[in-house]
Amino acid sequence: MDVPLHERVASELRRRISSGELPVGAAIPSESHLCEQWGSSRGPIRQALATLRAEGLIGGGRGKPPVVRSQSMPQPFETFLSFSRWVELMGRTPGQRTLEIARRPATPETCDALGLAEGEPVVQMLRLRLLDEVPAMIERTTFVWPVGRLLFDFDCDSGSVFAYLSRCGVDLSRARHVVDAVGADETDAGLLGIERGAPLLRERRHTSSASGAPVEFSDDRYRPDLVSFTIDNSQQAHPALLRSPSQGETP
Amino acid sequence: MDVPLHERVASELRRRISSGELPVGAAIPSESHLCEQWGSSRGPIRQALATLRAEGLIGGGRGKPPVVRSQSMPQPFETFLSFSRWVELMGRTPGQRTLEIARRPATPETCDALGLAEGEPVVQMLRLRLLDEVPAMIERTTFVWPVGRLLFDFDCDSGSVFAYLSRCGVDLSRARHVVDAVGADETDAGLLGIERGAPLLRERRHTSSASGAPVEFSDDRYRPDLVSFTIDNSQQAHPALLRSPSQGETP
Repeated sequence: MDVPLHERVASELRRRISSGELPVGAAIPSESHLCEQWGSSRGPIRQALATLRAEGLIGGGRGKPPVVRSQSMPQPFETFLSFSRWVELMGRTPGQRTLEIARRPATPETCDALGLAEGEPVVQMLRLRLLDEVPAMIERTTFVWPVGRLLFDFDCDSGSVFAYLSRCGVDLSRARHVVDAVGADETDAGLLGIERGAPLLRERRHTSSASGAPVEFSDDRYRPDLVSFTIDNSQQAHPALLRSPSQGETP
Repeated sequence: MDVPLHERVASELRRRISSGELPVGAAIPSESHLCEQWGSSRGPIRQALATLRAEGLIGGGRGKPPVVRSQSMPQPFETFLSFSRWVELMGRTPGQRTLEIARRPATPETCDALGLAEGEPVVQMLRLRLLDEVPAMIERTTFVWPVGRLLFDFDCDSGSVFAYLSRCGVDLSRARHVVDAVGADETDAGLLGIERGAPLLRERRHTSSASGAPVEFSDDRYRPDLVSFTIDNSQQAHPALLRSPSQGETP
Protein backbone atom coordinates (compact mmCIF):
# COMPACT_ATOMS: atom_id res chain seq x y z
CA MET A 1 0.00 0.00 0.00
CA ASP A 2 1.90 3.10 -1.18
CA VAL A 3 -0.76 5.72 -0.51
CA PRO A 4 -0.24 7.19 2.97
CA LEU A 5 -3.11 6.63 5.39
CA HIS A 6 -3.99 10.33 5.72
CA GLU A 7 -4.44 10.54 1.94
CA ARG A 8 -6.68 7.49 1.88
CA VAL A 9 -8.80 8.97 4.67
CA ALA A 10 -9.02 12.31 2.80
CA SER A 11 -10.03 10.57 -0.46
CA GLU A 12 -12.75 8.57 1.20
CA LEU A 13 -14.17 11.68 2.88
CA ARG A 14 -14.01 13.60 -0.43
CA ARG A 15 -15.97 10.82 -2.12
CA ARG A 16 -18.64 10.91 0.58
CA ILE A 17 -18.90 14.70 0.29
CA SER A 18 -19.07 14.85 -3.52
CA SER A 19 -21.67 12.08 -3.68
CA GLY A 20 -23.88 13.99 -1.26
CA GLU A 21 -23.71 11.16 1.30
CA LEU A 22 -22.29 13.92 3.55
CA PRO A 23 -24.24 16.98 2.36
CA VAL A 24 -23.31 20.63 2.95
CA GLY A 25 -23.92 21.40 6.63
CA ALA A 26 -23.48 17.79 7.77
CA ALA A 27 -21.04 17.02 10.58
CA ILE A 28 -17.94 15.02 9.68
CA PRO A 29 -17.58 11.85 11.82
CA SER A 30 -15.66 12.58 15.03
CA GLU A 31 -11.91 12.05 15.23
CA SER A 32 -12.37 9.13 17.59
CA HIS A 33 -14.91 7.54 15.24
CA LEU A 34 -12.52 7.95 12.29
CA CYS A 35 -9.62 6.55 14.35
CA GLU A 36 -11.69 3.47 15.07
CA GLN A 37 -12.93 3.09 11.49
CA TRP A 38 -9.39 3.26 10.06
CA GLY A 39 -7.58 1.59 12.98
CA SER A 40 -5.43 4.70 13.14
CA SER A 41 -3.90 7.06 15.67
CA ARG A 42 -5.06 10.70 15.72
CA GLY A 43 -2.14 12.06 13.62
CA PRO A 44 -3.22 10.82 10.15
CA ILE A 45 -6.89 11.62 10.87
CA ARG A 46 -6.04 15.20 11.83
CA GLN A 47 -3.84 15.55 8.75
CA ALA A 48 -6.71 14.36 6.51
CA LEU A 49 -9.09 16.86 8.11
CA ALA A 50 -6.52 19.68 7.70
CA THR A 51 -6.26 18.84 3.98
CA LEU A 52 -10.03 18.97 3.50
CA ARG A 53 -10.16 22.24 5.43
CA ALA A 54 -7.46 23.75 3.19
CA GLU A 55 -9.45 22.59 0.15
CA GLY A 56 -12.45 24.47 1.50
CA LEU A 57 -14.54 21.30 1.69
CA ILE A 58 -15.02 21.45 5.46
CA GLY A 59 -15.19 24.22 8.03
CA GLY A 60 -15.38 24.33 11.79
CA GLY A 61 -12.71 25.15 14.32
CA ARG A 62 -10.83 23.47 17.11
CA GLY A 63 -13.69 24.40 19.42
CA LYS A 64 -16.43 22.76 17.38
CA PRO A 65 -16.85 19.68 15.17
CA PRO A 66 -16.02 20.12 11.46
CA VAL A 67 -18.96 20.37 9.05
CA VAL A 68 -19.19 20.07 5.27
CA ARG A 69 -18.95 23.52 3.72
CA SER A 70 -18.75 22.83 0.00
CA GLN A 71 -19.39 19.97 -2.38
CA SER A 72 -17.07 21.41 -5.05
CA MET A 73 -14.56 19.10 -6.65
CA PRO A 74 -12.10 19.67 -9.47
CA GLN A 75 -14.09 19.32 -12.66
CA PRO A 76 -13.20 18.01 -16.12
CA PHE A 77 -12.88 20.42 -19.04
CA GLU A 78 -16.27 19.62 -20.58
CA THR A 79 -18.08 20.93 -17.49
CA PHE A 80 -16.84 24.44 -18.29
CA LEU A 81 -18.70 24.34 -21.57
CA SER A 82 -21.70 22.25 -20.60
CA PHE A 83 -24.03 23.48 -17.88
CA SER A 84 -25.98 20.20 -18.20
CA ARG A 85 -22.92 18.05 -17.63
CA TRP A 86 -21.82 20.14 -14.66
CA VAL A 87 -25.21 19.91 -12.96
CA GLU A 88 -25.38 16.15 -13.60
CA LEU A 89 -21.93 15.60 -12.09
CA MET A 90 -23.21 17.21 -8.89
CA GLY A 91 -26.02 14.66 -8.88
CA ARG A 92 -28.62 17.34 -9.50
CA THR A 93 -31.07 17.89 -12.37
CA PRO A 94 -30.34 20.28 -15.24
CA GLY A 95 -33.09 21.82 -17.33
CA GLN A 96 -33.60 24.43 -20.02
CA ARG A 97 -36.18 26.50 -21.79
CA THR A 98 -35.10 27.70 -25.21
CA LEU A 99 -36.64 31.13 -25.76
CA GLU A 100 -35.18 31.84 -29.18
CA ILE A 101 -32.91 30.40 -31.82
CA ALA A 102 -32.39 32.67 -34.78
CA ARG A 103 -30.29 33.21 -37.87
CA ARG A 104 -29.15 36.82 -38.12
CA PRO A 105 -26.46 38.89 -39.86
CA ALA A 106 -23.47 39.39 -37.53
CA THR A 107 -23.39 42.70 -35.66
CA PRO A 108 -20.09 44.63 -35.32
CA GLU A 109 -19.64 43.25 -31.77
CA THR A 110 -20.19 39.68 -32.97
CA CYS A 111 -17.80 40.15 -35.89
CA ASP A 112 -15.17 41.27 -33.42
CA ALA A 113 -15.74 38.30 -31.11
CA LEU A 114 -15.88 35.65 -33.84
CA GLY A 115 -13.53 37.12 -36.43
CA LEU A 116 -16.27 37.51 -39.07
CA ALA A 117 -16.91 40.03 -41.80
CA GLU A 118 -19.90 42.27 -41.16
CA GLY A 119 -23.16 40.84 -42.45
CA GLU A 120 -22.06 37.18 -42.42
CA PRO A 121 -24.81 35.03 -40.91
CA VAL A 122 -24.62 33.74 -37.33
CA VAL A 123 -26.97 31.70 -35.15
CA GLN A 124 -28.08 33.21 -31.84
CA MET A 125 -29.66 31.26 -29.02
CA LEU A 126 -31.30 32.54 -25.85
CA ARG A 127 -31.89 29.90 -23.17
CA LEU A 128 -32.97 29.90 -19.55
CA ARG A 129 -31.11 27.21 -17.60
CA LEU A 130 -32.56 25.46 -14.57
CA LEU A 131 -30.94 23.83 -11.56
CA ASP A 132 -33.40 21.39 -9.99
CA GLU A 133 -36.16 23.33 -11.81
CA VAL A 134 -35.04 26.67 -10.33
CA PRO A 135 -34.10 29.38 -12.90
CA ALA A 136 -30.35 29.75 -12.33
CA MET A 137 -28.73 31.15 -15.48
CA ILE A 138 -29.42 32.94 -18.76
CA GLU A 139 -27.37 31.96 -21.77
CA ARG A 140 -26.99 34.21 -24.81
CA THR A 141 -24.86 32.30 -27.30
CA THR A 142 -23.77 33.24 -30.82
CA PHE A 143 -22.42 30.50 -33.11
CA VAL A 144 -20.57 30.83 -36.40
CA TRP A 145 -22.95 29.76 -39.18
CA PRO A 146 -21.43 26.35 -40.11
CA VAL A 147 -21.82 25.26 -36.46
CA GLY A 148 -25.01 27.12 -35.53
CA ARG A 149 -26.93 25.71 -38.50
CA LEU A 150 -26.62 22.25 -36.94
CA LEU A 151 -28.88 23.46 -34.11
CA PHE A 152 -31.88 23.79 -36.43
CA ASP A 153 -31.87 19.96 -36.54
CA PHE A 154 -31.72 19.63 -32.75
CA ASP A 155 -34.29 20.08 -30.00
CA CYS A 156 -32.41 22.53 -27.77
CA ASP A 157 -34.81 21.75 -24.92
CA SER A 158 -33.80 18.08 -24.96
CA GLY A 159 -30.36 18.47 -23.38
CA SER A 160 -26.78 19.58 -23.83
CA VAL A 161 -26.02 21.58 -26.97
CA PHE A 162 -22.32 21.03 -26.24
CA ALA A 163 -22.74 17.24 -26.23
CA TYR A 164 -24.80 17.41 -29.44
CA LEU A 165 -22.21 19.54 -31.26
CA SER A 166 -19.39 17.26 -30.07
CA ARG A 167 -21.28 14.26 -31.49
CA CYS A 168 -21.56 16.20 -34.77
CA GLY A 169 -17.74 16.41 -34.81
CA VAL A 170 -17.44 20.12 -33.92
CA ASP A 171 -14.01 20.87 -32.44
CA LEU A 172 -14.53 22.76 -29.13
CA SER A 173 -11.03 22.38 -27.73
CA ARG A 174 -10.18 25.77 -26.30
CA ALA A 175 -12.05 28.28 -24.19
CA ARG A 176 -11.38 31.61 -22.58
CA HIS A 177 -13.75 32.78 -19.84
CA VAL A 178 -13.97 36.35 -18.61
CA VAL A 179 -15.84 36.60 -15.31
CA ASP A 180 -17.30 39.81 -13.92
CA ALA A 181 -20.50 41.17 -12.35
CA VAL A 182 -23.40 42.95 -14.02
CA GLY A 183 -26.78 44.31 -12.93
CA ALA A 184 -29.83 42.36 -14.17
CA ASP A 185 -31.50 43.92 -17.21
CA GLU A 186 -35.22 43.66 -17.96
CA THR A 187 -34.88 40.22 -19.63
CA ASP A 188 -32.64 38.83 -16.88
CA ALA A 189 -34.94 40.10 -14.14
CA GLY A 190 -38.07 38.67 -15.73
CA LEU A 191 -36.62 35.24 -16.49
CA LEU A 192 -34.71 34.76 -13.25
CA GLY A 193 -37.42 36.22 -11.04
CA ILE A 194 -35.21 38.86 -9.47
CA GLU A 195 -35.24 42.66 -9.37
CA ARG A 196 -33.84 44.81 -12.15
CA GLY A 197 -30.29 45.84 -11.27
CA ALA A 198 -29.73 42.89 -8.90
CA PRO A 199 -26.09 41.72 -9.11
CA LEU A 200 -25.47 38.77 -11.44
CA LEU A 201 -22.27 36.79 -11.94
CA ARG A 202 -21.43 37.03 -15.64
CA GLU A 203 -19.21 34.65 -17.63
CA ARG A 204 -18.32 35.64 -21.17
CA ARG A 205 -16.83 32.71 -23.04
CA HIS A 206 -14.99 32.42 -26.35
CA THR A 207 -14.69 28.86 -27.59
CA SER A 208 -12.43 27.92 -30.46
CA SER A 209 -11.04 24.88 -32.21
CA ALA A 210 -7.59 23.47 -31.40
CA SER A 211 -6.12 25.65 -34.15
CA GLY A 212 -7.83 28.77 -32.80
CA ALA A 213 -10.77 29.12 -35.21
CA PRO A 214 -13.66 30.82 -33.35
CA VAL A 215 -16.74 28.61 -32.82
CA GLU A 216 -18.99 30.43 -30.40
CA PHE A 217 -19.22 33.39 -28.07
CA SER A 218 -21.51 33.33 -25.05
CA ASP A 219 -22.71 35.75 -22.35
CA ASP A 220 -23.95 33.63 -19.42
CA ARG A 221 -25.47 35.30 -16.36
CA TYR A 222 -25.81 33.36 -13.12
CA ARG A 223 -27.80 34.05 -9.96
CA PRO A 224 -24.89 34.46 -7.51
CA ASP A 225 -26.89 32.90 -4.70
CA LEU A 226 -27.01 29.70 -6.79
CA VAL A 227 -23.70 29.54 -8.62
CA SER A 228 -20.19 30.84 -7.99
CA PHE A 229 -16.77 30.05 -9.45
CA THR A 230 -13.92 28.60 -7.44
CA ILE A 231 -10.25 28.71 -8.35
CA ASP A 232 -7.57 26.75 -6.54
CA ASN A 233 -3.94 27.47 -6.91
CA SER A 234 -0.65 27.00 -5.19
CA GLN A 235 3.00 27.79 -5.76
CA GLN A 236 3.43 24.14 -6.77
CA ALA A 237 0.42 23.49 -8.99
CA HIS A 238 -1.41 25.01 -11.90
CA PRO A 239 -4.60 26.74 -10.88
CA ALA A 240 -7.77 24.72 -11.29
CA LEU A 241 -11.09 26.30 -11.97
CA LEU A 242 -14.33 25.20 -10.42
CA ARG A 243 -17.85 26.41 -10.91
CA SER A 244 -19.74 25.99 -7.62
CA PRO A 245 -23.22 26.33 -6.29
CA SER A 246 -23.23 29.21 -3.79
CA GLN A 247 -24.60 29.09 -0.29
CA GLY A 248 -25.31 32.84 -0.16
CA GLU A 249 -28.50 34.76 0.42
CA THR A 250 -31.02 35.40 -2.39
CA PRO A 251 -30.27 38.57 -4.38
CA MET B 1 16.29 28.25 -35.37
CA ASP B 2 13.82 25.64 -34.01
CA VAL B 3 10.94 27.96 -33.18
CA PRO B 4 8.54 28.14 -36.15
CA LEU B 5 8.16 31.60 -37.68
CA HIS B 6 4.47 31.95 -36.77
CA GLU B 7 5.34 31.37 -33.11
CA ARG B 8 8.11 33.96 -33.19
CA VAL B 9 5.74 36.48 -34.75
CA ALA B 10 3.09 35.71 -32.11
CA SER B 11 5.63 36.07 -29.25
CA GLU B 12 6.86 39.40 -30.51
CA LEU B 13 3.31 40.74 -30.83
CA ARG B 14 2.45 39.43 -27.33
CA ARG B 15 5.46 41.30 -25.92
CA ARG B 16 4.42 44.53 -27.62
CA ILE B 17 0.86 44.14 -26.29
CA SER B 18 1.80 43.30 -22.69
CA SER B 19 4.32 46.15 -22.52
CA GLY B 20 1.65 48.60 -23.61
CA GLU B 21 3.62 49.53 -26.76
CA LEU B 22 0.44 48.35 -28.52
CA PRO B 23 -2.27 49.46 -26.06
CA VAL B 24 -5.87 48.18 -25.95
CA GLY B 25 -7.71 49.60 -28.95
CA ALA B 26 -4.55 50.01 -31.06
CA ALA B 27 -4.47 48.52 -34.56
CA ILE B 28 -2.10 45.62 -35.15
CA PRO B 29 0.33 46.30 -38.04
CA SER B 30 -1.16 45.20 -41.36
CA GLU B 31 -0.48 41.73 -42.79
CA SER B 32 1.61 43.22 -45.57
CA HIS B 33 3.63 45.29 -43.08
CA LEU B 34 4.27 42.15 -40.96
CA CYS B 35 5.20 40.12 -44.06
CA GLU B 36 7.79 42.76 -44.93
CA GLN B 37 9.10 43.05 -41.35
CA TRP B 38 9.59 39.28 -41.05
CA GLY B 39 10.48 38.55 -44.67
CA SER B 40 7.59 36.10 -44.63
CA SER B 41 4.71 34.96 -46.79
CA ARG B 42 1.14 35.53 -45.56
CA GLY B 43 0.66 32.00 -44.13
CA PRO B 44 2.76 32.30 -40.94
CA ILE B 45 1.54 35.88 -40.31
CA ARG B 46 -2.09 34.78 -40.52
CA GLN B 47 -1.38 31.83 -38.24
CA ALA B 48 0.21 34.15 -35.65
CA LEU B 49 -2.81 36.47 -35.77
CA ALA B 50 -5.19 33.51 -35.41
CA THR B 51 -3.30 32.42 -32.28
CA LEU B 52 -3.56 35.88 -30.71
CA ARG B 53 -7.24 36.02 -31.60
CA ALA B 54 -7.85 32.64 -29.92
CA GLU B 55 -6.01 33.93 -26.85
CA GLY B 56 -8.39 36.86 -26.74
CA LEU B 57 -5.57 39.38 -27.14
CA ILE B 58 -6.82 40.79 -30.43
CA GLY B 59 -10.22 41.23 -32.06
CA GLY B 60 -11.39 42.34 -35.45
CA GLY B 61 -12.72 40.32 -38.35
CA ARG B 62 -11.75 39.48 -41.88
CA GLY B 63 -13.52 42.64 -42.96
CA LYS B 64 -11.56 45.01 -40.73
CA PRO B 65 -8.02 45.30 -39.33
CA PRO B 66 -7.33 43.50 -36.03
CA VAL B 67 -7.08 45.66 -32.90
CA VAL B 68 -5.73 44.93 -29.41
CA ARG B 69 -8.56 43.81 -27.19
CA SER B 70 -6.82 42.76 -23.98
CA GLN B 71 -3.46 43.17 -22.32
CA SER B 72 -3.94 40.10 -20.14
CA MET B 73 -1.12 37.60 -19.95
CA PRO B 74 -0.78 34.47 -17.87
CA GLN B 75 0.22 35.64 -14.40
CA PRO B 76 2.45 34.10 -11.74
CA PHE B 77 0.96 32.75 -8.49
CA GLU B 78 1.93 35.74 -6.35
CA THR B 79 -0.28 38.06 -8.40
CA PHE B 80 -3.34 36.20 -7.12
CA LEU B 81 -2.46 37.20 -3.58
CA SER B 82 -0.92 40.61 -4.17
CA PHE B 83 -2.99 43.34 -5.77
CA SER B 84 0.13 45.58 -5.75
CA ARG B 85 2.22 43.07 -7.67
CA TRP B 86 -0.52 42.46 -10.21
CA VAL B 87 -0.97 46.16 -10.89
CA GLU B 88 2.80 46.67 -11.18
CA LEU B 89 3.13 43.80 -13.67
CA MET B 90 0.64 45.61 -15.90
CA GLY B 91 2.90 48.66 -15.78
CA ARG B 92 0.33 50.64 -13.80
CA THR B 93 0.44 52.21 -10.33
CA PRO B 94 -1.03 50.47 -7.29
CA GLY B 95 -2.12 52.39 -4.21
CA GLN B 96 -3.94 51.87 -0.93
CA ARG B 97 -5.60 53.64 1.95
CA THR B 98 -5.76 51.59 5.13
CA LEU B 99 -8.98 52.47 6.89
CA GLU B 100 -8.65 50.15 9.86
CA ILE B 101 -6.41 47.52 11.33
CA ALA B 102 -7.74 45.97 14.51
CA ARG B 103 -7.26 43.12 16.94
CA ARG B 104 -10.59 41.48 17.76
CA PRO B 105 -11.93 38.20 19.15
CA ALA B 106 -12.86 35.83 16.30
CA THR B 107 -16.55 35.77 15.34
CA PRO B 108 -18.28 32.43 14.59
CA GLU B 109 -17.90 33.07 10.82
CA THR B 110 -14.18 33.78 11.22
CA CYS B 111 -13.70 30.70 13.39
CA ASP B 112 -15.26 28.62 10.67
CA ALA B 113 -13.08 30.13 7.93
CA LEU B 114 -9.81 29.97 9.84
CA GLY B 115 -10.35 26.87 11.97
CA LEU B 116 -10.17 28.80 15.26
CA ALA B 117 -11.89 28.39 18.61
CA GLU B 118 -14.40 31.12 19.40
CA GLY B 119 -12.88 34.12 21.13
CA GLU B 120 -9.30 33.56 19.90
CA PRO B 121 -7.82 36.86 18.70
CA VAL B 122 -7.55 37.73 15.01
CA VAL B 123 -6.35 40.82 13.13
CA GLN B 124 -8.77 42.48 10.74
CA MET B 125 -7.76 44.96 8.06
CA LEU B 126 -9.98 47.15 5.87
CA ARG B 127 -8.21 48.72 2.89
CA LEU B 128 -9.26 50.65 -0.18
CA ARG B 129 -7.09 49.70 -3.17
CA LEU B 130 -6.34 52.08 -6.02
CA LEU B 131 -5.48 51.49 -9.68
CA ASP B 132 -3.72 54.58 -11.08
CA GLU B 133 -5.27 56.51 -8.15
CA VAL B 134 -8.81 55.35 -9.00
CA PRO B 135 -10.65 53.45 -6.20
CA ALA B 136 -10.92 49.94 -7.66
CA MET B 137 -11.30 47.43 -4.84
CA ILE B 138 -12.17 47.05 -1.15
CA GLU B 139 -10.28 44.46 0.86
CA ARG B 140 -11.59 43.04 4.14
CA THR B 141 -8.94 40.64 5.40
CA THR B 142 -8.80 38.59 8.60
CA PHE B 143 -5.46 37.10 9.69
CA VAL B 144 -4.77 34.47 12.33
CA TRP B 145 -3.13 36.22 15.29
CA PRO B 146 0.49 34.98 14.90
CA VAL B 147 0.52 36.40 11.35
CA GLY B 148 -1.71 39.44 11.83
CA ARG B 149 0.32 40.74 14.77
CA LEU B 150 3.24 41.29 12.36
CA LEU B 151 1.16 43.99 10.67
CA PHE B 152 1.29 46.27 13.71
CA ASP B 153 4.99 46.74 12.87
CA PHE B 154 4.28 47.58 9.21
CA ASP B 155 2.92 50.65 7.48
CA CYS B 156 0.09 49.07 5.48
CA ASP B 157 -0.09 52.19 3.31
CA SER B 158 3.50 51.69 2.16
CA GLY B 159 2.92 48.76 -0.15
CA SER B 160 2.20 45.04 -0.44
CA VAL B 161 1.19 43.26 2.77
CA PHE B 162 1.75 39.95 0.95
CA ALA B 163 5.37 40.89 0.12
CA TYR B 164 5.95 42.05 3.71
CA LEU B 165 4.56 38.82 5.21
CA SER B 166 6.59 36.71 2.77
CA ARG B 167 9.74 38.57 3.87
CA CYS B 168 8.77 37.78 7.49
CA GLY B 169 8.82 34.08 6.52
CA VAL B 170 5.04 33.52 6.54
CA ASP B 171 4.12 30.48 4.40
CA LEU B 172 1.38 31.55 1.92
CA SER B 173 1.58 28.58 -0.42
CA ARG B 174 -1.99 27.67 -1.16
CA ALA B 175 -5.09 29.65 -1.99
CA ARG B 176 -8.71 28.96 -2.86
CA HIS B 177 -10.71 31.75 -4.45
CA VAL B 178 -14.50 31.80 -4.67
CA VAL B 179 -15.77 34.36 -7.16
CA ASP B 180 -19.32 35.68 -7.26
CA ALA B 181 -21.25 38.95 -7.51
CA VAL B 182 -22.69 41.09 -4.74
CA GLY B 183 -24.50 44.44 -4.49
CA ALA B 184 -22.48 47.31 -2.98
CA ASP B 185 -23.25 47.95 0.69
CA GLU B 186 -23.05 51.38 2.33
CA THR B 187 -19.27 51.11 2.93
CA ASP B 188 -18.53 49.81 -0.58
CA ALA B 189 -20.65 52.52 -2.19
CA GLY B 190 -19.05 55.34 -0.21
CA LEU B 191 -15.46 54.21 -0.74
CA LEU B 192 -15.76 53.22 -4.40
CA GLY B 193 -17.93 56.19 -5.35
CA ILE B 194 -20.75 54.08 -6.77
CA GLU B 195 -24.42 53.63 -5.92
CA ARG B 196 -25.64 51.32 -3.16
CA GLY B 197 -26.65 48.00 -4.69
CA ALA B 198 -24.43 48.43 -7.79
CA PRO B 199 -23.01 45.05 -8.88
CA LEU B 200 -19.51 44.26 -7.61
CA LEU B 201 -17.27 41.34 -8.49
CA ARG B 202 -16.43 39.58 -5.22
CA GLU B 203 -13.48 37.28 -4.55
CA ARG B 204 -13.41 35.43 -1.26
CA ARG B 205 -9.99 33.93 -0.65
CA HIS B 206 -8.70 31.38 1.85
CA THR B 207 -4.92 31.26 2.05
CA SER B 208 -3.08 28.52 3.88
CA SER B 209 0.40 27.14 4.35
CA ALA B 210 1.77 24.23 2.32
CA SER B 211 0.51 21.84 5.01
CA GLY B 212 -2.97 23.41 5.01
CA ALA B 213 -2.82 25.59 8.13
CA PRO B 214 -5.16 28.59 7.61
CA VAL B 215 -3.37 31.97 7.42
CA GLU B 216 -5.92 34.48 6.23
CA PHE B 217 -9.42 34.88 4.87
CA SER B 218 -10.33 37.84 2.66
CA ASP B 219 -13.45 39.34 1.07
CA ASP B 220 -12.31 41.54 -1.85
CA ARG B 221 -14.84 43.52 -3.87
CA TYR B 222 -13.88 44.91 -7.28
CA ARG B 223 -15.53 47.48 -9.50
CA PRO B 224 -16.42 45.25 -12.50
CA ASP B 225 -15.81 48.08 -14.94
CA LEU B 226 -12.17 48.12 -13.76
CA VAL B 227 -11.32 44.48 -12.99
CA SER B 228 -12.51 41.10 -14.21
CA PHE B 229 -11.13 37.57 -14.00
CA THR B 230 -10.10 35.52 -16.99
CA ILE B 231 -9.74 31.75 -17.12
CA ASP B 232 -8.18 29.92 -20.03
CA ASN B 233 -8.53 26.23 -20.50
CA SER B 234 -8.37 23.55 -23.09
CA GLN B 235 -8.72 19.82 -23.39
CA GLN B 236 -4.92 19.65 -23.48
CA ALA B 237 -3.85 22.07 -20.77
CA HIS B 238 -4.63 22.90 -17.17
CA PRO B 239 -6.78 25.99 -16.84
CA ALA B 240 -4.91 29.21 -16.09
CA LEU B 241 -6.47 32.00 -14.15
CA LEU B 242 -6.00 35.64 -14.97
CA ARG B 243 -7.27 38.73 -13.26
CA SER B 244 -7.91 41.37 -15.91
CA PRO B 245 -8.81 45.01 -16.10
CA SER B 246 -12.26 45.29 -17.71
CA GLN B 247 -13.21 47.43 -20.64
CA GLY B 248 -16.87 47.62 -19.62
CA GLU B 249 -19.09 50.55 -18.82
CA THR B 250 -19.12 52.18 -15.36
CA PRO B 251 -21.55 50.55 -12.94
